[in-house]
Amino acid sequence: MAGSSYGTIFRLVSFGESHGPAIGGVVEGVPSGVQLSAEKIRAELDRRRPGQSAIVSQRNEADEVEFLSGIFEGRATGTPIAFVVRNTDQRPKDYKEIEHTFRPSHADFTYHQKYDTSDHRGGGRSSARETIARVVAGAIAKQVLALVGISVEAFVDQVGSIRWEGEWKPELAAVRESNVVRVPDAETAAAMENLIREVRKDGDTIGGCIRCIVTGVAPGLGEPVFDKLHAELGKAMLSINAVKGFTIGSGFSGVEMRGSEHNDPFVQGGTTATNHSGGVQGGISNGMPIDFRVAFKPVATIMKEQQTINNYLESTTITGKGRHDPCVVPRAVPIVEAMAAMVILDFYLRDKATNL
Amino acid sequence: MAGSSYGTIFRLVSFGESHGPAIGGVVEGVPSGVQLSAEKIRAELDRRRPGQSAIVSQRNEADEVEFLSGIFEGRATGTPIAFVVRNTDQRPKDYKEIEHTFRPSHADFTYHQKYDTSDHRGGGRSSARETIARVVAGAIAKQVLALVGISVEAFVDQVGSIRWEGEWKPELAAVRESNVVRVPDAETAAAMENLIREVRKDGDTIGGCIRCIVTGVAPGLGEPVFDKLHAELGKAMLSINAVKGFTIGSGFSGVEMRGSEHNDPFVQGGTTATNHSGGVQGGISNGMPIDFRVAFKPVATIMKEQQTINNYLESTTITGKGRHDPCVVPRAVPIVEAMAAMVILDFYLRDKATNL
Amino acid sequence: MAGSSYGTIFRLVSFGESHGPAIGGVVEGVPSGVQLSAEKIRAELDRRRPGQSAIVSQRNEADEVEFLSGIFEGRATGTPIAFVVRNTDQRPKDYKEIEHTFRPSHADFTYHQKYDTSDHRGGGRSSARETIARVVAGAIAKQVLALVGISVEAFVDQVGSIRWEGEWKPELAAVRESNVVRVPDAETAAAMENLIREVRKDGDTIGGCIRCIVTGVAPGLGEPVFDKLHAELGKAMLSINAVKGFTIGSGFSGVEMRGSEHNDPFVQGGTTATNHSGGVQGGISNGMPIDFRVAFKPVATIMKEQQTINNYLESTTITGKGRHDPCVVPRAVPIVEAMAAMVILDFYLRDKATNL
Amino acid sequence: MAGSSYGTIFRLVSFGESHGPAIGGVVEGVPSGVQLSAEKIRAELDRRRPGQSAIVSQRNEADEVEFLSGIFEGRATGTPIAFVVRNTDQRPKDYKEIEHTFRPSHADFTYHQKYDTSDHRGGGRSSARETIARVVAGAIAKQVLALVGISVEAFVDQVGSIRWEGEWKPELAAVRESNVVRVPDAETAAAMENLIREVRKDGDTIGGCIRCIVTGVAPGLGEPVFDKLHAELGKAMLSINAVKGFTIGSGFSGVEMRGSEHNDPFVQGGTTATNHSGGVQGGISNGMPIDFRVAFKPVATIMKEQQTINNYLESTTITGKGRHDPCVVPRAVPIVEAMAAMVILDFYLRDKATNL
Repeated sequence: MAGSSYGTIFRLVSFGESHGPAIGGVVEGVPSGVQLSAEKIRAELDRRRPGQSAIVSQRNEADEVEFLSGIFEGRATGTPIAFVVRNTDQRPKDYKEIEHTFRPSHADFTYHQKYDTSDHRGGGRSSARETIARVVAGAIAKQVLALVGISVEAFVDQVGSIRWEGEWKPELAAVRESNVVRVPDAETAAAMENLIREVRKDGDTIGGCIRCIVTGVAPGLGEPVFDKLHAELGKAMLSINAVKGFTIGSGFSGVEMRGSEHNDPFVQGGTTATNHSGGVQGGISNGMPIDFRVAFKPVATIMKEQQTINNYLESTTITGKGRHDPCVVPRAVPIVEAMAAMVILDFYLRDKATNL
Repeated sequence: MAGSSYGTIFRLVSFGESHGPAIGGVVEGVPSGVQLSAEKIRAELDRRRPGQSAIVSQRNEADEVEFLSGIFEGRATGTPIAFVVRNTDQRPKDYKEIEHTFRPSHADFTYHQKYDTSDHRGGGRSSARETIARVVAGAIAKQVLALVGISVEAFVDQVGSIRWEGEWKPELAAVRESNVVRVPDAETAAAMENLIREVRKDGDTIGGCIRCIVTGVAPGLGEPVFDKLHAELGKAMLSINAVKGFTIGSGFSGVEMRGSEHNDPFVQGGTTATNHSGGVQGGISNGMPIDFRVAFKPVATIMKEQQTINNYLESTTITGKGRHDPCVVPRAVPIVEAMAAMVILDFYLRDKATNL
Repeated sequence: MAGSSYGTIFRLVSFGESHGPAIGGVVEGVPSGVQLSAEKIRAELDRRRPGQSAIVSQRNEADEVEFLSGIFEGRATGTPIAFVVRNTDQRPKDYKEIEHTFRPSHADFTYHQKYDTSDHRGGGRSSARETIARVVAGAIAKQVLALVGISVEAFVDQVGSIRWEGEWKPELAAVRESNVVRVPDAETAAAMENLIREVRKDGDTIGGCIRCIVTGVAPGLGEPVFDKLHAELGKAMLSINAVKGFTIGSGFSGVEMRGSEHNDPFVQGGTTATNHSGGVQGGISNGMPIDFRVAFKPVATIMKEQQTINNYLESTTITGKGRHDPCVVPRAVPIVEAMAAMVILDFYLRDKATNL
Repeated sequence: MAGSSYGTIFRLVSFGESHGPAIGGVVEGVPSGVQLSAEKIRAELDRRRPGQSAIVSQRNEADEVEFLSGIFEGRATGTPIAFVVRNTDQRPKDYKEIEHTFRPSHADFTYHQKYDTSDHRGGGRSSARETIARVVAGAIAKQVLALVGISVEAFVDQVGSIRWEGEWKPELAAVRESNVVRVPDAETAAAMENLIREVRKDGDTIGGCIRCIVTGVAPGLGEPVFDKLHAELGKAMLSINAVKGFTIGSGFSGVEMRGSEHNDPFVQGGTTATNHSGGVQGGISNGMPIDFRVAFKPVATIMKEQQTINNYLESTTITGKGRHDPCVVPRAVPIVEAMAAMVILDFYLRDKATNL
């Protein structure tokens, strides 16, 4: 109800404020006996971590995850898996000023209006640091999905107006991981990296897009009415900080097409010749790759003076401080994958529950 | 769990197959004593109804709604409001052929894979007729929201590549209702209507977009993590048939902007000079109009021969029959409004629950 | 949230007021393809029906159930099953007086305090007529459970201070159905029937107990913490009108026992020599019959003058009218079975969801 | 779904195994700004703690609770409150043998059947140590309830066949806390303590009852159908380890009464002359004290040899080891209060959500 939980059977409750003692979560719904590699979880956290390259926030946190329950001798016990990541590199001084001034397009003002609280240190729950819990839960979900042949791969396909429109292939994962932007193409990556560096030099920020492909989902997953597979994926993505849009398959470009172009003809055996549907028809997977895109706005914190108000709602100005990302998408790739994995696994388990 | 419910406190359970005896729903969470006008509900159903103009499906159903509980002498009793709309103009013959052949980009194939059932009459639950339940629940939600000064207005702003980019004003509601496309501009409406007629003459269909504006929402509604206000709106919209995309505020165009352009400067008193945020910052309303767009693909049923498969997964062809819409957006306007009203009211009531 | 739903995967939403147009419900979670006999549902409704014998309420309603969705050619389609039972024998005149006077130990006063509504006709949602929805859902659940070898049998084992302490055997079902009290022993039945007749002659009412035995549940159903199998059964039973107590296995008599007497020794193969646990240990089924008891208070409506207050909270008197049961347990047997079947099936499906 | 959460708006997710690293929980739904005393939480944990007197388990754990989020400068921030209690006095050796042998009437066998896991150390989630999370959440709930004038008081009223049937008064709280059994009467306490000592000397255990009184609840709390106030209280109590029965008001003794005796006559102003209803009529509070009783069976672990089976389901014997309680009720008093407080607060907040 308070909106800190996600999922029905595979379910994450997340907790923790950016500048409180810790971030963490409780994961329910992992089947008993499943092997869980701590190393794989650690690897996903490293992909999300600030300080990993020159183009992301230089906040430096080791993000050591401690598991408190639900895992015994490397296997899930079937009971809630609780985990904690301590906050170690807090610099509340950086947030001294903003206790009284609202940063434009940040959550400060709305958070204050909702909770009427004085705890503004680093954004409280609206800090991107909360996504640690998502990445841990997602890394668990991915390991369960791997057992049933499902893989989830996301990558950056746009920064500012630079866009990569190539076709994703599993082999491109290595290329993606070899560059700091996480694009599956080295040349595009270099251009994007340059743009991000330039923007940062200006004390500014820039938006970007992430595309995600889920393969191995058999036909029949999802629900025909409210809990359409792509509706839940949309919610999951829009719940990530800075996301302003979500499309599946043809998305907004499908609007300009005619039915005769847009329809995906079935091919003998049950696949389709095109995939404008993005792997989902009528809210239910059709066996084709699930293919969606997520739009991230430019990060709100910029190192330039901006017009704003204080908590008496009077006009004032503010200039960003702290260690922030000039572009959020490189570090958001593992978060998109994590949320997608959580959604797909949840539907997978829900499907189990409806068969005798 | 089975995905036929929506909402937490204000909650709709919908039921019914297109070609079964009835469509209906049960609405929980309407505060006791609220006056509910049957006429206003009927008016919304009329906006959704097939047969209302020359450019929509000619299926002719009166859609008489009968209330079975929860309303006494015109007021909500605080208990579940159940309602039923009988299916009267069924023509199962039209669906005879498709019992054995899957329509491309329709839910036939995925529905069959999920339920392994022989009940394909008119798409079962995946028929757009299911949206009757949403429109009734939405018409109830709108009446409750009106009591607290919140209004929800949607309109068509794109058909194919014709787009209206004007600014919405409450006065435009009359213009919107005066044309069959539901655009707030007569000239654009005429152009879109021509396009739809032309497309239909070809036996084809075309996509479109709907934009929705919610005004009167005070700052502080929504949740900072998973249940962000726009994440839930996104899910609600993506759960409507034929929707392939959702954006709030700047959406995908924000991707190309810099933070210094995109940020909405606060103005003395607490409003913002621009509204790239679309009324939501960090998942919580900021008091500005909530402003989002929804992309609808072209309707899958076309009157042309298409390549497809039968339920032995063998190649065959199919040609559309039945009475279908050449463009779904004119009739989807009240559905978008209904889902938006349901989401906003639910958050409004959730907010009540967290204050002593 | 509003408390008109029960269950997680197998889920009933119930609706309807006693003196409104209809009672009904929506059942989700029935696996697609399951055969559902309308006759079996009808038979359970007949067991619940007023007017079935001389010792129950003489209200005479046919209780014809109409299914609106989710069943096609006698099989579940996997989608929500909606059903409606029209109210035909309403006599709102009987309730004229109580619009202004609260019946002692009835829900009138509390219902009025909660909803502040003028709709007191026959108790609104707190009328026992609401249990029709439970019986229909339970009759569906029983048919699904039968497919996996689970049976649910309840019977009256106490009326006033007359108690039957025999051992239940499946063969006794016929005896139980052959007498109007629903006791598995003819002699006890006669004594109880006499007591009920005598009490009614006095214009009074009397309490009773129902015992319920669920067989065929394999070990492993239920959850170890909050959702213990017997905790959910307890909630289900306590949600039935007039219930004031619930025990499983040894219940309150176990309080006086020592651990060495109370413990159920395991026998080679995994069963236990005694069943003080009532088939549940640590909240999880152990494979033994699930065995619980439910206490019903005497019906509140009596034909004697009683001290009470009106809705100005002033002292007044009231004398019962209308057609009420002198003892609720004979008609409550199918309701107890229905709720038990709903709970067991829900846990059965939840269990499915936690295995890959 | 996995049954480790309780509540809808005020909600606890609990985690942790008895012999894993920690026990803890996450509490959602505490209104922002509420002052929370760590000392009061600590005091409740001390009442639950083993080792507090000669008649309870001698396991010695300090049970230091650490709060990880949701509290800032002594006030709730409105976000999830996570807390952890480390397990420090684990003696897994005590559980070596039972890895292969199931203790009669314990959760070992059923837990093993459910999870098919080898983690039997101390019962996993079915250990009474899990109740730490409930006591913390309950201590928070109590502090919120105190702000609106609601108090929750439980006490032991039966051990074996010794029963105290006096009338509860707030002044008796001091008496209750002054004796190790937690009975509001010194003489009865002494008799019960003697019985417990004697039973323990025999290597045996004994059952008991707890009664709980909630005062200050205004009329109108609860729901008329499935989520009746006492149904939820019943579930909450039955979810506590070793509970086999729950009654409200007259309970099983009401069964033998006639309506004319049992009905609670209304008195001018709205209270009732008697309280056979136990403060709840039709599932909704009537303003009288909520009054219920909970039956605890004797603890399963006894220091005597018992017949049982190993995990090949072969016959063997077992003799209890470890540090266990001879009677569970003295330490269960704060747990009963905690669960009651959680339920009442949840209904209190739910009620807020249904008013505009």
